[in-house]
Amino acid sequence: MLRTLAFDADDTLWHNETHYAETQEAFRTLLRAYHDDAWIDARLHDTEMRNLQHYGYGIKGFTLSMIETALELTEDRLDGAGIRQVVELGKTMLAMPVESLPGVTEVLQELSKDFELMVITKGDLFDQETKLARSGLGIYFSKVEIVSEKDEATYAAILERHVIPADRFTMVGNSVKSDILPVLALGARAVHVPYHLTWAHEQVAAPAEAAFPVLASIRDLPALLRGW
Amino acid sequence: MLRTLAFDADDTLWHNETHYAETQEAFRTLLRAYHDDAWIDARLHDTEMRNLQHYGYGIKGFTLSMIETALELTEDRLDGAGIRQVVELGKTMLAMPVESLPGVTEVLQELSKDFELMVITKGDLFDQETKLARSGLGIYFSKVEIVSEKDEATYAAILERHVIPADRFTMVGNSVKSDILPVLALGARAVHVPYHLTWAHEQVAAPAEAAFPVLASIRDLPALLRGW
Repeated sequence: MLRTLAFDADDTLWHNETHYAETQEAFRTLLRAYHDDAWIDARLHDTEMRNLQHYGYGIKGFTLSMIETALELTEDRLDGAGIRQVVELGKTMLAMPVESLPGVTEVLQELSKDFELMVITKGDLFDQETKLARSGLGIYFSKVEIVSEKDEATYAAILERHVIPADRFTMVGNSVKSDILPVLALGARAVHVPYHLTWAHEQVAAPAEAAFPVLASIRDLPALLRGW
Repeated sequence: MLRTLAFDADDTLWHNETHYAETQEAFRTLLRAYHDDAWIDARLHDTEMRNLQHYGYGIKGFTLSMIETALELTEDRLDGAGIRQVVELGKTMLAMPVESLPGVTEVLQELSKDFELMVITKGDLFDQETKLARSGLGIYFSKVEIVSEKDEATYAAILERHVIPADRFTMVGNSVKSDILPVLALGARAVHVPYHLTWAHEQVAAPAEAAFPVLASIRDLPALLRGW
């Protein structure tokens, strides 16, 4: 019997990457007089990757990376008003309403009758906590784990801490890299529910031997679980 | 019998506020041509407090608040090179070596024989995790809780999650507001080990009825606990 069903949050329970995409479009607009879009995107991505070791994941680090990229791309010519706009882009992202993905509330309500539900999400502690609170979905989850990286060691530590045998654990998420492969490696199950956008850093080719179900919508999850 | 001994981290296990003080001095130097020190400090503090609802605690939010304050205090005249310096001040803070306070290692080593040791710290998840790893003190702690706020509700949730009765729990920390008062309110014990600097936001007057031991150094902790 399955016991614990864990969900990723960003782009699994609620929209997230669309907010980054919107913000990045506003960032391009600010710098379009200096460079073309592809170059702006590439430089921003490089800065983010370089800064991951300093900042980890999340909007505050992304905002600092946007500021750094803007200065680099304008050779320090972006003026104070421009910098202020970038700071505001970050604050706007942090304040964006948390919109559940279609079907999420109904599915959680249904599954909470038969499973222990858990959130395992990566990113900024404060931001993820406030998003969960604002989403109104917190009531369905008995455990919430906000982690700085989602790799095999992280999942192993979570299962150990909560005394969950791997064969009773299923992870549901939109990232093959963070939600699926490390979980399968532990002998647990994982269900992939893709989001229409994937951050470049999360894109991986799934190895040929990895087999996991892929659902078009989280609405299909209860039927899949009933079949197991 | 006592069972669990929990320690705050910043300014209890290692130096932290001194890094903020050094950074703030560099920030003043950058803006001294525009304003006097007291005004710079007051505006930065106001920005931090205003932004706490957006950013929570930690160095990344502090860096964004420094940028915002620098633009405000120079009426957007601070140039790109100046902004870049502020971004670098933040990165320098994030990379600062983690220096244990005198006596910490010996005391943890000694107490780990008789108590379950725990860290309860507030702030940025990624930053606090890397600090604990870099400190080399992680081996002494069986539980680590990184939280976004240290109030009565937070401590109550931690005790419940780890099934620790309040009368077997003791918190050790440098902040009366975050480490002492909310813990006493739950009927647990708390020991105050002041640091020579306290962030203005953490300064509170302890109510007259609150009674808790105050130690000059963490080195005095084992003797205090033996007396209980």
